[in-house]
Amino acid sequence: MSHHADYARQLAQRARQASRAMVGVSGQQKTTWLKRSAENLIANAADLVARNAQDLEQAPSFGLTAAAIDRLRLTPARIESMAKGLLEVAALPEPVGEVIEGYIRPNGLSVQKVRVPLGVVFFIFESRPNVTVDAAALCVKSGNAVILRGGKEALQSNVALYRILKNSLIETGLPEHAVQLIATPDREVVGEMLKLRGLVDVTIPRGGKSLIERVCAEATMPVIKHFDGVCHVYVDRTADLDMAVNILRNSKCQRTGVCNAAECVLIHQEIAAEFLPRMAEMFATEQVEVRGCAATQAAIPWAKLASEDDYRTEYLDRIISCRVVTDINEAMDHIGTYGSQHTETIVTSDVASADCFTRMVDSSAVMVNASTRFNDGGELGLGAEIGISTDKFHARGPCGLREMTSYKWIVRGQGQVRE
Amino acid sequence: MSHHADYARQLAQRARQASRAMVGVSGQQKTTWLKRSAENLIANAADLVARNAQDLEQAPSFGLTAAAIDRLRLTPARIESMAKGLLEVAALPEPVGEVIEGYIRPNGLSVQKVRVPLGVVFFIFESRPNVTVDAAALCVKSGNAVILRGGKEALQSNVALYRILKNSLIETGLPEHAVQLIATPDREVVGEMLKLRGLVDVTIPRGGKSLIERVCAEATMPVIKHFDGVCHVYVDRTADLDMAVNILRNSKCQRTGVCNAAECVLIHQEIAAEFLPRMAEMFATEQVEVRGCAATQAAIPWAKLASEDDYRTEYLDRIISCRVVTDINEAMDHIGTYGSQHTETIVTSDVASADCFTRMVDSSAVMVNASTRFNDGGELGLGAEIGISTDKFHARGPCGLREMTSYKWIVRGQGQVRE
Repeated sequence: MSHHADYARQLAQRARQASRAMVGVSGQQKTTWLKRSAENLIANAADLVARNAQDLEQAPSFGLTAAAIDRLRLTPARIESMAKGLLEVAALPEPVGEVIEGYIRPNGLSVQKVRVPLGVVFFIFESRPNVTVDAAALCVKSGNAVILRGGKEALQSNVALYRILKNSLIETGLPEHAVQLIATPDREVVGEMLKLRGLVDVTIPRGGKSLIERVCAEATMPVIKHFDGVCHVYVDRTADLDMAVNILRNSKCQRTGVCNAAECVLIHQEIAAEFLPRMAEMFATEQVEVRGCAATQAAIPWAKLASEDDYRTEYLDRIISCRVVTDINEAMDHIGTYGSQHTETIVTSDVASADCFTRMVDSSAVMVNASTRFNDGGELGLGAEIGISTDKFHARGPCGLREMTSYKWIVRGQGQVRE
Repeated sequence: MSHHADYARQLAQRARQASRAMVGVSGQQKTTWLKRSAENLIANAADLVARNAQDLEQAPSFGLTAAAIDRLRLTPARIESMAKGLLEVAALPEPVGEVIEGYIRPNGLSVQKVRVPLGVVFFIFESRPNVTVDAAALCVKSGNAVILRGGKEALQSNVALYRILKNSLIETGLPEHAVQLIATPDREVVGEMLKLRGLVDVTIPRGGKSLIERVCAEATMPVIKHFDGVCHVYVDRTADLDMAVNILRNSKCQRTGVCNAAECVLIHQEIAAEFLPRMAEMFATEQVEVRGCAATQAAIPWAKLASEDDYRTEYLDRIISCRVVTDINEAMDHIGTYGSQHTETIVTSDVASADCFTRMVDSSAVMVNASTRFNDGGELGLGAEIGISTDKFHARGPCGLREMTSYKWIVRGQGQVRE
């Protein structure tokens, strides 16, 4: 136990020192590092693929599915896409030093709220190795130091990626420990790191619900997270039904294993008779299992009966729950009871329904006539994201560069004192 | 124990319901409540003074000092000032629904970040009863429900104030439980409340360091707080010495018992010989004890020798620590080592020193040529404040209406789906 504690503390202290040194690093230097890292990724592609092959070889022994193994795989094309991602982050506006607000007080004091880094970010994630590079890019561009903890399934790939990022830091004169990797699979190190309030400013866990619950239970510092995404599509009485089918298909099927995919569809009773058969046809084509209420089953003979549990479940699979509701209020009650405050969308032609839904539904993103899949940093224009928060504290929804920052007040006077 | 848990849960559940109902309350209704509360305070002034007299009678048995008893006292003039405070909050811009950002994405999606309330605020504070009214006003104006927990020394006064606020809620049609008071002095209720993550969104403790440490150790939800305010005045080589004496006097003496009062003065060695005698004269007049380094003692014979502990101490009294430093870097190192990231000020005529200090010092407010006492919601133009945060997560520095809010993303489309 004790050497895990020592290791965690050493990483965190180095990160804290690096984060202090980052205050003196210019935006230009950070851009240079991002570009150099991109070049070095490409230059080391063959080595990366070879190191990744070691992970792929071990993958079946960790019980990874074929889909998970595919996500783990690094190819020259994927390495090129990682490098492109770094250049995209390099092109984003510099967040540190931005004057968020500024004004002169009646007594002549100049008051500014200026964006500053959070400090040290502890980022925990699962097997996809491209996340390693994205997270490091976002954290360093926003002036932070980051400690990365990837899944054991990707350890060799992550070590190889980390070395490239670290060498690029050294080559471009940035603090060497601005990016660090926990290079052991032992879970105890995570527990020790979560104790280090004062050295670690924020922990961001990305992965399954059990990981996130563990992190939240143990963390002594703030956590940016969402537990799950039980996202809803509500098809209102006045919905354009073609649009509703299309949005529902995209929300559920475009990618099923992601947090902003729809898990439940709610349908206004007045259009249920017309909508349900069209929905059934679409889901049959898409091979999506429907679990619905009695009214759903009456219209779709092959639908299963939904249990209470179904309405609370994030399937992350080709399954959807369905309920016919009397009106928008029942839909919003259902969302309030079973939802996870992640993403909900209404399909409607009625301005009053749209207003009511966006005002009353208390989720990180509330959509009108658009796919739930748009709750994403890239799609909402943040450039890139390190995660999605369903909390109301600090950042909510997709978290990009700005969400990795705080601010300080800078007050300039000419000798003012308080009366 | 169990009835404390039940009581806490009942308060929190009522607050949660009230916070949901607050979504339907307009800015106009909130303004009406604030004005009605102000009227009702004035109308019930005699009763308030009588109830307050019961607290004053008990005060010596709680070991309150004469100064603390004075802060506890309600007079018609103070009640009028509380009512005026409510009208000032009423006049502030409505925070809920503010579009913080808004733009159209290339695919035609309209994206807005819209300000929403945090939800349920648990506010813990010590004896001054006017804080009861201020906190309730800020929380409700920002669309939240609040559970108030005042000090036992002010219990009768707080119950009387709470009844006025609650009756005003009922009279003006706002949710009755938008403001609640813990009406028992038992400390166990606080412990039970701090367990209620999911029902309580944020806890704000205001008081002594031991209270805040206890709350941080036990709270399962985010906490807005500062532990202490070891604030510094650094007198640079190029300082205008008249200005420096004036700013130092104001920072230390204008009110000693507050978090943004100065506790330590750092002096550049090149001006120490000229500045120290002038500082000594001012502090002698103000009856402030000086505890300094050897160089301080050499210039001020009556100064005591400062210990390591002195430099870490928030005196909240007519005592100040003092150190002569070789340059601005040593001053900033001292602040980094002994400070509490609350408020620091530099007195300087040199633009490079001012830039360096504001950029490098990592405190919630960094001042140039102005008193530390300006780190205050009212003084920085927030209108009113519920507390000052030294954290980097969520809000930093003075917290007013906006800092009691979060935001949600509202995305309006015309049928867009992800490719």
